[in-house]
Parts: sequence; structure tokens; C-alpha cells
Amino acid sequence: MEANPVSVPAPPPWVDDRGAALFTDLYELSMLQAYRREGMDEVPATFSLFVRDLPPGRGYLLACGLDDALRFLERVRFGPEALEHLRATGRFDEEFLAWLRGFRFTGEVRAVPEGTPVFPGEPILEVTAPIAQGQLAETYVMNQVHLQTLLASKAARVVRAAAGRAVVDYGARRIHGTDAALKAARAFHVAGVSATSDVLAGWIYGVPVAGTMAHSFVQAFRSEKEAFRAFVRSFPDTVLLVDTYDTLEGVRRVVELARELGDDFRVRGVRLDSGDLAELAVGARGILDAAGLGRVEIVASGGLDEFGIAELLSRGAPIDGFGVGTRMGVSADAPALDMAYKLTEYAGEGRVKLSTGKRLLPGRKQVFRVEEGGRAVRDVLAREGEAVDGRPLLRPVMSGGERLPEGVADLDAARERTRRELEVLPERVLALRPEGPPYPVEVSPGLRAYDREVSGRAGR
Amino acid sequence: MEANPVSVPAPPPWVDDRGAALFTDLYELSMLQAYRREGMDEVPATFSLFVRDLPPGRGYLLACGLDDALRFLERVRFGPEALEHLRATGRFDEEFLAWLRGFRFTGEVRAVPEGTPVFPGEPILEVTAPIAQGQLAETYVMNQVHLQTLLASKAARVVRAAAGRAVVDYGARRIHGTDAALKAARAFHVAGVSATSDVLAGWIYGVPVAGTMAHSFVQAFRSEKEAFRAFVRSFPDTVLLVDTYDTLEGVRRVVELARELGDDFRVRGVRLDSGDLAELAVGARGILDAAGLGRVEIVASGGLDEFGIAELLSRGAPIDGFGVGTRMGVSADAPALDMAYKLTEYAGEGRVKLSTGKRLLPGRKQVFRVEEGGRAVRDVLAREGEAVDGRPLLRPVMSGGERLPEGVADLDAARERTRRELEVLPERVLALRPEGPPYPVEVSPGLRAYDREVSGRAGR
Repeated sequence: MEANPVSVPAPPPWVDDRGAALFTDLYELSMLQAYRREGMDEVPATFSLFVRDLPPGRGYLLACGLDDALRFLERVRFGPEALEHLRATGRFDEEFLAWLRGFRFTGEVRAVPEGTPVFPGEPILEVTAPIAQGQLAETYVMNQVHLQTLLASKAARVVRAAAGRAVVDYGARRIHGTDAALKAARAFHVAGVSATSDVLAGWIYGVPVAGTMAHSFVQAFRSEKEAFRAFVRSFPDTVLLVDTYDTLEGVRRVVELARELGDDFRVRGVRLDSGDLAELAVGARGILDAAGLGRVEIVASGGLDEFGIAELLSRGAPIDGFGVGTRMGVSADAPALDMAYKLTEYAGEGRVKLSTGKRLLPGRKQVFRVEEGGRAVRDVLAREGEAVDGRPLLRPVMSGGERLPEGVADLDAARERTRRELEVLPERVLALRPEGPPYPVEVSPGLRAYDREVSGRAGR
Repeated sequence: MEANPVSVPAPPPWVDDRGAALFTDLYELSMLQAYRREGMDEVPATFSLFVRDLPPGRGYLLACGLDDALRFLERVRFGPEALEHLRATGRFDEEFLAWLRGFRFTGEVRAVPEGTPVFPGEPILEVTAPIAQGQLAETYVMNQVHLQTLLASKAARVVRAAAGRAVVDYGARRIHGTDAALKAARAFHVAGVSATSDVLAGWIYGVPVAGTMAHSFVQAFRSEKEAFRAFVRSFPDTVLLVDTYDTLEGVRRVVELARELGDDFRVRGVRLDSGDLAELAVGARGILDAAGLGRVEIVASGGLDEFGIAELLSRGAPIDGFGVGTRMGVSADAPALDMAYKLTEYAGEGRVKLSTGKRLLPGRKQVFRVEEGGRAVRDVLAREGEAVDGRPLLRPVMSGGERLPEGVADLDAARERTRRELEVLPERVLALRPEGPPYPVEVSPGLRAYDREVSGRAGR
């Protein structure tokens, strides 16, 4: 552990292209220098990114984040300031720093498309490149694919629980940091979420943006009704937040406003944000319907997740849409995945790890999804090039450091893929509380034999 | 919910100064336009940022993130591209967009210094500004203070469990996104963590950087011993990872390396990353000591958190340092805080909310920490300016939109403050499993009376 001797007068406050190469664990750079010193840096190697186990209570994961992983690989450069910083740490030699100056990613990537359900042990992507390049990719690529796969997987469950009703992402304020909030909005959209509250995510990704009003607006006025009047002057077709003081009183004020405005009343909905949402939704629906406002929708928010939504709907709550924030945005029941990025081949030879509880299968792989009668029945994890029945999931997305057409991100296509791919999974895997045996992932005969062969000589 | 009609040819991939103003919930901008239309945008208001409840099993929180909150307020601008985007959404009128062009934060902020323990209901910061300015601050300021308070609070527990041994942050790959990973490294350092693995965080914040080696490096060589030899050629005083194949065999190879290298052997430690770490540490210590390598330290990593560390040490594991990644980095047991940013004063009058389970006390506040015999015994939440015994925690950090000396970030001072402030908290509050009554936060007579007065007329 060394103190950092460089003081940066104007530190880059965010990770931009200038800094992205240094968004890496120190050991990656240390290993790069050692590979280089040993004359190994150009030796081809394959690294596999996969999840070891599903979080408890989960039936599948939804792969996401490939676009950012590839963008990093396309752009990664060590600029003069970054090199100066590395020099000043005193840890690296000049030959290595000169080599870093010309560093480019020139390898290939095979990956499952964004929006593909994946299971334990299945590569989400495989990087094949000179070992130094594949090694450097680890920290950033895993950071992005881990985050976006985590969040897309959570959101798919929330969307399923909402059973066709709109889900809007309200997470920006409590999702972990700005990068995650933006990527979340995108990953959620892939998973079927309708819109985000985050204006910047809407700008960057073209995700639909939605929003209502906050309690502070209501509080700023002398009375709730005055606040409602003022807000609809600016936004006639808005959703009004009715729980600042007393929810059903708030709904009655919306009815009064409708009487005041007559044909000019175009309020689209009311939002309930506290209390017993099922009971209040029934009450609100009754008040609105009795006033002839059957077309005014009810939106619920406040601490919701897939279980909360399912419970509200099972109680028959007349809710038309959900605002979901923190619990989806931090994947509260499973805030991390047991994801790993591991060397599986070096110089054309398979590599394994035998660490307790962290076994690794060797070599480049392919995942085959076997469907019968329009339903996925099992996956087969095989060696690349092995002849296995089923639909292969990993596709080439980058070659020679450049994106292939299959690697170009398409948000709408990824969202549609999610919808289509989830439809063919067994019900027990999709369930909010998965039951019965997990979705089967078999290891092919060829991969099993190869593992025995490689493991037998490992570590000697 | 509207589709976003603008396509951005070269979207900003990260949140930089150009995009930060749009890192906001849509409703903030909607409310700004409505405030403006109603002629209210310049009316002074106070917003309070606080946590409603502690997560289960936690005795306190550690405030962090003020520096990024203030940086946002200093720099927030709506640039031409951002305004063009907002125009294209069709949601905002030209008068409002022209006003946004000149938007500046000109208000004041009072805050507890970074590294201050805080309790439920206590303001971490209060923003007093024209209401439009205070409103716009909500999303970004909460995003940063929530994240950094969450992570500093978690890390303080890990540091305590390690009981004087070094804790190194290995979280970059699974912390949620790049922004969070960088801010985490800083927040962890405030909380007493020794170093981070993230090179960029070291550059930006001057946090010490540390790292060892990965399994992939070991795997790339014909044998573990060859890998160790090669790594120490580049980094003689490194920590060697010994669990790729068989942990205690790995330790024996380190001993062999020591015999080979003689006086040139300067390896500082071995790292255990899987298996029963306590048992393996005892075994490794025995092997090293028997070989006269008593000065070679043992570092443990792999799925650790405060509970894992405490258990290892309670079993007498001879471990000298800990690498802690995911569970600290996502605050796995409590991945979010019940944090809120609420209007408490408008035009000089207190404001409340009566929403079920989300009560809010009105007006500007001060927090007094009362100490007896060198121990904090209770806090008192009072009105600003109220005479109460104890040490006031909220200090002016920004005035007229500019930082005051108290608002200038000082990482070392924040770290030292944490150490000092935690020392005076009661043991039962600091415990990994807090017991007995929670730390008392009393409401002053003045604040109680004011709440009765304001609540009585609210919502009418």
C-alpha cells in the first residue's frame, strides 16, 4: 500500500474518456507490467465473464451492459496525464509506461445480446485478446456488465409483477451514484420498464421520461387545492400527488378542481405515495368514479418492489401504474451478483482454477438453449465449435478491436428480445418465488472431457 | 409519460458539467416552471436532507458526500445543448427556458461536516435559497449524499471489526457503476479504510492505492511457482495470491521461493481468497513461521464484511489485513437509506407533511450533541437559533452560492473527525449488533411547540 504522491490541481470530477483507462484495480496494471517483462503480453488468452450462482429467490438473470463494455474497449487509451500520474506513483518502469502510451484493444469479443436470460456458469461475454489487453478489461467491463445485468434482472421481475401496467423508474436520487442511475434507466427500459424520471437518461438513451410533482410543491402553497390549481395551469394533463396531508381529502380536492375547470380539466391521474396503498386506491377510485372521473388513473409509489406490487394487485387494488424507486434501483434483495471474469485459455490451452467453491471450466465456450414445443427446457454449456443441438447464444460482437454489426447497441431491439426470450422460459423460472428444480444447465460431453484433461495437469 | 423526440448523435457517455443540470427528476423541472409561472420562484425556502430511520441492525450513520453536493451547487448551469434538449421535449415554455439559461445557485447551505455521526431525523444539510433553486438541488444532492453516507456508514463498521488491522477496498468491479466506485473509495477513506484498489480514485482523491495479483496471472503460467517468480521480478515486495489451486500448497511455494531468492526475498505477504479463511490462516501462519518467515503477513479476502471479519478474529485467525469488496461496496445488508429532502420552510413560515409514516418537523433546525464525561449521551433537535445546551453540529458551508471555508473539503480532516467523533459515541451504538435503547434524539421544547403551531394549520 503506497501513499499517492501526486496532487492533482483540477481533478477530473467524473469518469470521462481521459480517465477511463485508470478506472482499474491497481493489480491489473501490475500484472500488465509483469506480463510485459516476462514477454507474455502478446500471448493470446480468453477471459470469460459469468455469474457463479443466482441470488436466493431468483430464477434467471437478464444480460445487459454489453454496449458500455464494448465502448470502453473501443476507446481505452492512456493519455499523457494518466501516464504522468502512473509515473509519479513510482510503481512502474519507463519501458512499461512507453508501451502503455500505445495501448489499444485489438481483440475479439463474443457475447450474448443484451436482453438475453442467462444462468449460472454461462458466459455473458468472452474476451479473446493478447493477455495484457484482456486482463486490463476486467475492472471496467465487469463494473458495467455487473451493474446493468443486476438492474435489468431486478426490473424484469417488477415488470412481471405489474402484469401489463406501466412501471416508471423513480430511482435517480437513491441509486448508487450518477453513472448507475443513468445506466439503470437504460437497463430498466431493456427489461420492460416504461419510462424514467431522469431527464439526462432520457437525453442520452432516448428512454421515455415521466414525472409528476413532489410534496414540496404542495407544501409551498397555502392550501393543497391552490397547489393543484397552480400545477395544472402549467401542466394540464399531469398526475397530481394527493397524500401530502390526507390522501382521500386530496382526491376530493382533485374532484373539486374538476368541477371548477369543467371541460378544461384534463388531469390524467392521481398519485398515492404513502399509507395502505390498496385501501387508499379503492377509496380514491370510488371518489373519482362517483364524480364521473373514471378516466382519471391511479398511480402508486412509495417503497414498492415486485413483492409489494404483487400484493397490491392480489388485493384487487385498482392501480393503473407504479412508480418504483429505491428497491428496484439498488436491487435491494440482491444488491450484487457473484460475477467473475476468469482466464479460461492461454496460448491455445485451457486453464482452470481449483479454488474451494470457485471452480472454473476451461476454454472458450458456447451456450446452447434447447427449446421443445416453444419452451426452453435446458441449456447446454459446451466448448466453442462443439456440435450440440440447440440455439447458440454467444455471437461475435467485436473483432480486431472494432464492433461488428451484432455489437451495435439497439435499445428497442434489446427490449423486444427481453420480451420474446422471457416468454419461452418455464413459468417456474419466471415466478416471483421460483419453485421446483432450477433451470437445467448441462455441461456437454466435450467440455466435461476437456475439464478433466486440463484439471489433471493444473497447478503443477 | 412522453416519448423522447430528440436523437443525440454523440450522447455524453458520462455525467460531466455539461450534463449535470439535467441529472434531475423530470418533476423538479416541471415544478420549477410552475413556481416561475406562479411568481413564486424567488420566494426563499428551506429544504432539509435527513434520514428517517436507521437500517435494521445499525446504530448510527456517518455523514459524507457534502463536497460533491456543494460542487454541484457551485457549477450547475443549463448549457445550450441541454436547453435545446428541453425545448425539444415540448414540455417547457420559452420564457422558462430563457430563465433557465441564467440559472445559478445563489443560496446558502448549512451542513454537518463530513465524518460526523448522525441519527434519524437530524439534518445532514439544509439548503436555504429561492425555492426554485432549492428544489432543483434535490435529485443530484440526494444522490451523492445518500450514496456516500451509505458507504461511509458501512465502512466504519468494517473498520471497527478489523480492530486496527488494515482494510483495503477491492470493490471497483461490483460497486454500482463508475461514479459510485470512485466516491466509495473516498467515503471509505473517510471512514478509516486504509487504501483502495481503484487507480483512478487514487488519482482523483489522493487516497492510497494498493493491490496484489489475480488468479489469472497464476493460471497463465505453467506452474504456480513460475508465476510467483515472475511477479516478484517486477514487484519484489508484493503480496502473493496463494489459493488458485491449493492454498497451503501455494504457501509452501512461497517458502520455496524464499529459499531460492535468499536475501532478495522481500515478499510482504500472502493472500487467501477462498475456503475456510480462519483455518487456512492458521495453516499458512504455521508454514511461514516454521520457515522463518514470521514477517510475511497474511491478507484475507473473499466475500468479507464486518461480520465475516469479526468471526475470523474471534476464532483467533492470524490475519494481518483484509481486502473487502462487494459487501462493503454495495452496503449489502442495507443497500439504501430512508433519506428524504423535504421543504421545511417557505417565505419564512414552517412547513410540514402529515403523510402516513412520513411525518416532517417544520423550519430550520440545529442539532446539538450533548456530552457528559467525554461520552455523547443524547442529541437535541432544535429550531435554528434556539438556545440549547450541547455542541451544535450544523455549520454554514455555503453562502450566496459560494463555499465558505467550512465547506472546503479536507479528506484527512474528515477521516480524523470520524475517528474522534466515533470515539465519543456509546459502545452500544457502535457495536456491530447494537443493543439496548437507540441513541436518544430529543426534540427541543421550542421545536415541539413550533410543530404543533404549524401542523394545526397545515393543508387547509
